Amino acid sequence: MNTSNNMYVERRKRVVERLKSNGISQMIIWDPASILYLTGEKVYAFERMWALYLADGREPVLFANKLFVLSGNTDVKVVWHTDVDDGAAQLAEYTNHEDVLGIDKVMPAKYLLALQEYGAATGYKNTSCYVDAVRGEKDEQERKLMIEASRINDLAMDRFKALIHDGVTEQEVAAQIEGIYKELGAQGNSFTPIVCFGANAANPHHEPDDTVITEGDVVLFDVGCIKDDYCSDMTRTFFYKTASDKQREVYEIVKNANLAGEAAMGPGKRFCDADSAARDLITEKGYGEYFTHRLGHSVGMEVHESGDVSSANTDKFTPGRCISCEPGIYLPEEFGVRIEDLCLITEDGVTVMNNYSKELEIIG
Amino acid sequence: MNTSNNMYVERRKRVVERLKSNGISQMIIWDPASILYLTGEKVYAFERMWALYLADGREPVLFANKLFVLSGNTDVKVVWHTDVDDGAAQLAEYTNHEDVLGIDKVMPAKYLLALQEYGAATGYKNTSCYVDAVRGEKDEQERKLMIEASRINDLAMDRFKALIHDGVTEQEVAAQIEGIYKELGAQGNSFTPIVCFGANAANPHHEPDDTVITEGDVVLFDVGCIKDDYCSDMTRTFFYKTASDKQREVYEIVKNANLAGEAAMGPGKRFCDADSAARDLITEKGYGEYFTHRLGHSVGMEVHESGDVSSANTDKFTPGRCISCEPGIYLPEEFGVRIEDLCLITEDGVTVMNNYSKELEIIG
Repeated sequence: MNTSNNMYVERRKRVVERLKSNGISQMIIWDPASILYLTGEKVYAFERMWALYLADGREPVLFANKLFVLSGNTDVKVVWHTDVDDGAAQLAEYTNHEDVLGIDKVMPAKYLLALQEYGAATGYKNTSCYVDAVRGEKDEQERKLMIEASRINDLAMDRFKALIHDGVTEQEVAAQIEGIYKELGAQGNSFTPIVCFGANAANPHHEPDDTVITEGDVVLFDVGCIKDDYCSDMTRTFFYKTASDKQREVYEIVKNANLAGEAAMGPGKRFCDADSAARDLITEKGYGEYFTHRLGHSVGMEVHESGDVSSANTDKFTPGRCISCEPGIYLPEEFGVRIEDLCLITEDGVTVMNNYSKELEIIG
Repeated sequence: MNTSNNMYVERRKRVVERLKSNGISQMIIWDPASILYLTGEKVYAFERMWALYLADGREPVLFANKLFVLSGNTDVKVVWHTDVDDGAAQLAEYTNHEDVLGIDKVMPAKYLLALQEYGAATGYKNTSCYVDAVRGEKDEQERKLMIEASRINDLAMDRFKALIHDGVTEQEVAAQIEGIYKELGAQGNSFTPIVCFGANAANPHHEPDDTVITEGDVVLFDVGCIKDDYCSDMTRTFFYKTASDKQREVYEIVKNANLAGEAAMGPGKRFCDADSAARDLITEKGYGEYFTHRLGHSVGMEVHESGDVSSANTDKFTPGRCISCEPGIYLPEEFGVRIEDLCLITEDGVTVMNNYSKELEIIG
């Protein structure tokens, strides 16, 4: 067994221990990022089955379609199937039918309903939280990879900004983003880049279209890359040629909310309190109803991982947690401003992993 | 109500009728492509809830996160939630607890397990097949859109082929594909493009890497675009500068298998028989074990839709069905060849929607 397999053995052990201490003896993991984290095997399964069975005192088993090509480095037993096999029946052959079965939150209903029909267990419980909790506590190696992915994102933002000139459309800018990341050594986008001009920025999930830049527009980039399988995610909002008083006012409020959110992060502090630190500041200024989403989300191998920074999450931050801090104000038909960094909770505080300036900047 | 809404009312009616005739009175639709098909509303929900409740004799309801921006054109009632609400509890308020609930095959286990805990129904059944059957029967308007998406794919293949020259890597070629589609009027890729040189083509799902082209390599493009929300998907395999006798032999076998598969398609013919028409030909030539996947899949708003062309699917083709025909032979460490067209089942036969040459071609 090589060093790398030792790391995966250790991670699987942490997950099984966490399950056991919550009364669960077996689980089917479905999230491909969790399987990568626990075995080192990366598969894009599309609608096919790609699953990992973990159980206390039993050997782990990977279920893979013959179409997939594995690295050959894993020491985990692999059970193969083809497109014409019944995947759920195969899983049910391995589960302990006399006990509860932990289920991954992303397992498609197609498989869960079939497992239930086959009597694969005495009950089914969403136990992703235990896997996610382990994944949420990034070790030293993972922290370095997260910092590197954000460093590339900082470098890339200067390049993105330079793409803005008279006559350019959102789509033309967005189309160049992945190439720039690759030039900087990343694998590609960690999510479809968001590029918004003017009123389009009032939609937090606007898709780049053929809108042409206009003087006085906000220019919002919400972008991230994947480097060595870890994600970055950052938002900056610029102003094209000029900024109105209202734009400046809103920008400063969002910037201060971003800083307040980050200042409220650290080990032992609560996710919900970071959310309210930023939200209260925006509400006090009269824009509370225009901040329509949570303050942030956890990030790692996936750009959205379990662990929201929201008013509903009363958990406490622990060292190794990587989260976004991304307050925004969205004024329909007018404009929107969002400022987002990725933050790493350390043993004694918080490290903001993005170092790109947050001062108001006029470009073009 | 406008014409467009009439179309969606009609489609929802077809789905509810199909459910009813199979003893199901209510269903939660989760697949965003199905929701787009049934309401005209396109949302990228990521891990958030975006669902459509359809029931016989009850009004349809869309469940949307406040973060989403809808078109405003739908006449379907929308129930909004935020990131801190319990989505499954909201769904359970609308379901009929005294009857079975149809469940979409892609609904994540997180929501299904919560619905079961809340007692949202007397039983839960995967009823996606009824929605998929309706979606599988493309109407005139949809057929035109499918043909147009494949027409663009034919045009694009010439451009992709022209990207191959000494020194180029798979990744450099792959990075230009989406831009070319956009120049040709498409929305973008319908899936991550597959570009393989040489032995990499022996992995049917190879990801483009920094492999440099070498004389004698096969050059495999498995690519597709989205145009007006409908997908294309085509594979062509070329040879760089020269082709060995073995490569030529394998190519001709795959080409003949592709033609045999297409010839076996038509209304009333069975999916499995098209698969075996192509597979038998490859097996007879001694390469059966190297054709490791089904012959094809259905295509529409999603690049992989329900309705496999495989030995396990004994259903019959009906008019309006769009499927891929993509036999391949994969020789590990050596090379792979795949030739894929999209085909439309018509009232009296089959129309191959790709018109790009399938004759062996040496490039470079």
